[in-house]
Amino acid sequence: MYPPPWTAAWLLLLHGCAAGRPPRATSAKTDIRDCSVDPPYLPPTATNTTARLSALRGVMRALRVHAYIVPSTDAHMSEYIAERDSRLGWLTGFTGSAGTGVVTWDKAALWTDSRYWTQAERQLDCNWELQRTTWIESIGTWILEAVPAGGNISLDPFLFSIDTWNSYSQALQGSGRTLLPIEDNLVDQVWGDQRPPPASGEIYTLPEAFTGSSWQEKVAGIRLQMERHVRRPTAVLLSGLEETAWLFNLRGDDIPYNPVFYSYTLLTNTNISLFVDERRLSAAARQSLRGGCPGPLCVELQPYGQTRAHLRRYAGGNVTVWLGTEYTTYGLYGVVPPEKLLEDSYSPVMLAKAVKNAKEQELLRAAHVRDAVAVIQYLLWLEKMVPQGRVDEFSGAQHIDALRRAQEHSRGPSFQTISASGLNAALAHYSPSNGSSRQLSVDEMYLSDTGGQYLDGTTDITRTVHWGVPTPLQKEAYTRVLMGNIDLSRLVFPPNTAGRTVESFARRALWDVGLNYGHGTGHGIGNFLSVHEWPVGFQSNNIPLTAGMFTSIEPGYYQDGEFGIRIEDVALVVKAQTKEPFLTFEVVSLVPYDRNLIDLSLLSPEQIRYLNTYYETIRARVGPELRRQRLEEAYGWLQRNTEPFPLPSSADATTTAGTLALASLLPALLAGPRA
Amino acid sequence: MYPPPWTAAWLLLLHGCAAGRPPRATSAKTDIRDCSVDPPYLPPTATNTTARLSALRGVMRALRVHAYIVPSTDAHMSEYIAERDSRLGWLTGFTGSAGTGVVTWDKAALWTDSRYWTQAERQLDCNWELQRTTWIESIGTWILEAVPAGGNISLDPFLFSIDTWNSYSQALQGSGRTLLPIEDNLVDQVWGDQRPPPASGEIYTLPEAFTGSSWQEKVAGIRLQMERHVRRPTAVLLSGLEETAWLFNLRGDDIPYNPVFYSYTLLTNTNISLFVDERRLSAAARQSLRGGCPGPLCVELQPYGQTRAHLRRYAGGNVTVWLGTEYTTYGLYGVVPPEKLLEDSYSPVMLAKAVKNAKEQELLRAAHVRDAVAVIQYLLWLEKMVPQGRVDEFSGAQHIDALRRAQEHSRGPSFQTISASGLNAALAHYSPSNGSSRQLSVDEMYLSDTGGQYLDGTTDITRTVHWGVPTPLQKEAYTRVLMGNIDLSRLVFPPNTAGRTVESFARRALWDVGLNYGHGTGHGIGNFLSVHEWPVGFQSNNIPLTAGMFTSIEPGYYQDGEFGIRIEDVALVVKAQTKEPFLTFEVVSLVPYDRNLIDLSLLSPEQIRYLNTYYETIRARVGPELRRQRLEEAYGWLQRNTEPFPLPSSADATTTAGTLALASLLPALLAGPRA
Repeated sequence: MYPPPWTAAWLLLLHGCAAGRPPRATSAKTDIRDCSVDPPYLPPTATNTTARLSALRGVMRALRVHAYIVPSTDAHMSEYIAERDSRLGWLTGFTGSAGTGVVTWDKAALWTDSRYWTQAERQLDCNWELQRTTWIESIGTWILEAVPAGGNISLDPFLFSIDTWNSYSQALQGSGRTLLPIEDNLVDQVWGDQRPPPASGEIYTLPEAFTGSSWQEKVAGIRLQMERHVRRPTAVLLSGLEETAWLFNLRGDDIPYNPVFYSYTLLTNTNISLFVDERRLSAAARQSLRGGCPGPLCVELQPYGQTRAHLRRYAGGNVTVWLGTEYTTYGLYGVVPPEKLLEDSYSPVMLAKAVKNAKEQELLRAAHVRDAVAVIQYLLWLEKMVPQGRVDEFSGAQHIDALRRAQEHSRGPSFQTISASGLNAALAHYSPSNGSSRQLSVDEMYLSDTGGQYLDGTTDITRTVHWGVPTPLQKEAYTRVLMGNIDLSRLVFPPNTAGRTVESFARRALWDVGLNYGHGTGHGIGNFLSVHEWPVGFQSNNIPLTAGMFTSIEPGYYQDGEFGIRIEDVALVVKAQTKEPFLTFEVVSLVPYDRNLIDLSLLSPEQIRYLNTYYETIRARVGPELRRQRLEEAYGWLQRNTEPFPLPSSADATTTAGTLALASLLPALLAGPRA
Repeated sequence: MYPPPWTAAWLLLLHGCAAGRPPRATSAKTDIRDCSVDPPYLPPTATNTTARLSALRGVMRALRVHAYIVPSTDAHMSEYIAERDSRLGWLTGFTGSAGTGVVTWDKAALWTDSRYWTQAERQLDCNWELQRTTWIESIGTWILEAVPAGGNISLDPFLFSIDTWNSYSQALQGSGRTLLPIEDNLVDQVWGDQRPPPASGEIYTLPEAFTGSSWQEKVAGIRLQMERHVRRPTAVLLSGLEETAWLFNLRGDDIPYNPVFYSYTLLTNTNISLFVDERRLSAAARQSLRGGCPGPLCVELQPYGQTRAHLRRYAGGNVTVWLGTEYTTYGLYGVVPPEKLLEDSYSPVMLAKAVKNAKEQELLRAAHVRDAVAVIQYLLWLEKMVPQGRVDEFSGAQHIDALRRAQEHSRGPSFQTISASGLNAALAHYSPSNGSSRQLSVDEMYLSDTGGQYLDGTTDITRTVHWGVPTPLQKEAYTRVLMGNIDLSRLVFPPNTAGRTVESFARRALWDVGLNYGHGTGHGIGNFLSVHEWPVGFQSNNIPLTAGMFTSIEPGYYQDGEFGIRIEDVALVVKAQTKEPFLTFEVVSLVPYDRNLIDLSLLSPEQIRYLNTYYETIRARVGPELRRQRLEEAYGWLQRNTEPFPLPSSADATTTAGTLALASLLPALLAGPRA
């Protein structure tokens, strides 16, 4: 699945706009809404926000707040949020996952990125201007025009990262406006008892069979890092929900698709404080956490609401608090005096989680084998049903979800299934609904971007197929997307290479003919955690690639109004077969590509060889599982679809002889002078 | 030539250490010096710094300065500096171009990057610790250990960029030490009358034939940007010496190899102040600058030493000063109140200079044709003389310099000629001296990295050759370096692509077999200005690639103690032959590669086709110039060395048919649905 929203702006900056997806004109004329007529024309999907805005403005006036900024995230900088935290969605009607709203006494505007412009036009009423950018500088400029000098610009300090806070602060610097944090969220005050209640589901322990190591081992590892750090931090503060879930091998269901629970952790060199609603812990979870009490491996359970007060008390001592700025809100950060802070972009827990140990790798591999079974069943089912006109996008999505649920250890989908036919696939974040769902047809391409949660791992895979006769452009574009996927997957690179410096290998085959795509090329993924697990990936804010990391590789191509292509696999960073300890990828998604869409004449012999080797792996790993599950028809489908591709007859003594020759020469040559 | 020093640390971070060039152990045992014996063992190249340090410490004690930081740059953040600004060199004996010295009352240490470790060991005496890193955090840690709390850490605010100042400030934050700027440089006080005098050479106007536009047009362009900027800056401050030189079409010779002169410029919306030693201006220069007086295109000449005072007065008004933080020192920056600053990494003048207009492009192309003549003459001369044992590195360097000087519009070399045979070429910054120069031999590889200043352009080219029988590893490594050069040169990419995201294409052929190089892949270059012209290139701090930029492309491979390979060309960013306005490179360096070192079997048909097309261009552009100069023997050499390479007999309907097919298909296909 696509890398998450907050990186989209970066991509537009870095790569310009994708060839197939030019930026929409910002002229209001392209807006679906027409607010210039009386009454305004609005699509039926728009939400009437007049009463909500009026109530919010009442609170704002009372507090002398002239502009109030409402973000789309929660207090843990989560990518997915619970309904209860969807303040922006409730206030605006806009349900996209990324955006910022600003309300003044007489104006209101929503900022979001290109993936969501059409959706926003369909959901906003005429109270809201749509701003087609996400730069904070642009928000700042708008605020400066809307609010006179002397005004107060306010926000909830627990909903903004330190960096975002600083950006707003900088945008307003010297302008005569004051940036005023208010802890009691104004939207919540207005939302009142209509707001969904806090999560109450059980928080449970992940069975040992599905964990890489015990939480005590993980804590010991982090404490060792603290001791060895030159600044000698006395505590690590964890704000990201995945961090606490991973550290203690606990899971919950507070947020759709993400098995996490609301919590903070303060791990000191002598104590462990877990801030959580204690009543929600299962008996086993409580026993696991309290088994070492009293002592340095005793977890003290504290009320979630006490995090800030506790941190403030702790920061009064002779301490140094280590935290990751990307996941810490200004509300917590501001409690610790600057000289007692040790700041990195990501906490040591986030970084430890990113590198899977041998057991975690095996768990994730195993989940992908069963996941491949479900996807193969789905592709086989589509092949039979689509020609009969019996599948639409929605029923297709329901079917793949059901097939996954039937697999062992399944815990449902890992994100909302993307099932898009024809032109719908050119919309980046399209998900079908029961009411409006396009029928799948042998005359159109179909894109499914789906994933599952299993106790042993999280999966995410995209396949694009065509059951009829693709156009030459569709076939060529698909093949070039595949070439990009292959070129990045088979790349050999030095340790500590930043993903951003190599992701262009996934684009080059498209670039060669002036095509491109407007989203990121990949993201980390968890062991029964988030489908987008940071900070692994290919963006500028990702950390260097290291053996043991998992990332998706997902180039695409989108032809506006016609079709969309994406080919996504999850890959593990592994040691390469080079004398120097270089790295490469092992693809763990195990589903063949659509032969009907591959123009073999475009592929180099190396690319064909790579494909054939990959298909051998699929056969070796998924074949036995299909037989174990007695899925003989799917087994036959797999065999047919993983037949080796023929190499060009002339292929190809020339281009590979050297590599092979050197590979055998090198050890001798390099060893010689060093021996 | 190599990208400049301050980017080296980045590269080590981004790519890990190059396979062939592992980081040196930091153990003192590998040091050439032995300071543990009495008297210490020092190589004869070491400088005795005892008296200088003692004098400096006297001044430090008097001022209660407990540590003094001495950088390698000047007040304009120049990469190359005048002897007068070589404070670090004078104080330490170390003459490398990048480093930082810190002196306390009883200790002294020098930090420098891996290119200079050996040189530093040879030049430092035992007063100096050598610290083999350049991270400011490491310097800060050292200072914290060496200076007790309450101490003053001092530096010259005119020798540190804002960012570097902030880094030191952060490293010492909350430590109880004070970072104390002292404007009167302490080293200068001690250096006294031994310090070289200020430059006094003439500052002259570049003839119109060699300028892209008049200075008045350039000023108008910058003022237009000021008017259109949302912050409405009232002035642009220029600190980089190239900025003022480019803006006013003036040149000088204050710094070796760089035709610039000491100056600052404050360009306001109504006035222009040039801070310079007025007496040094030629009559024509003065007339050019003063022709529009009085009026908005009148340049007011102010004393160089008055820059800060003038800026402070200006900043007292209702103004906004636009500046580039990378080239502005803390000494000037601190004069402008924060709310009156408009900060970018680079000033609008720096950015305008980076994109050459049509005339500047033609000038640079023309300079490269004549430069190719000189290099071809040199390669021919080497071919004849080396087998006779009549060339060493130093005499070779002298010869290529002389050949360049004989070309029209020559103004000497653009950097110190690198002429390195055998194992010397594995040292990144090797330049021969008269005393110690290796003889060139048919049994060794030879690397020459050379460039010229011409009135129409600056050049920079590296060729590596072998006149005998190269080893298989040498040939394979050379071919893979060439493949990298070709792969990046022929890349098609979208507008606004960051160089950093594509520079790996120059590395992949090496990476495939576990090899790499430890330096950057390219840098901008000027029209009779700096050979390293920022901010164009492939590093993380470079700006996105745009049509009209020139950059070097220079992959390499270095086998410690054995040989070094680098293949460097200068290339212009141009529009590609794609329907969407993508970009690619046009290589303007026009010298063929060494056929003796190319293993054709490693190249793909596309790479061979690219080479043959490039060679056709060389013939078409350099051939006539060789004939015009009546260099018939060189003409023959050129013809022989640009013979087309044979394509593999089977080559290669497969891998290119698709591209060509699409190239012809695309216009129709893309136009269709949009019409």
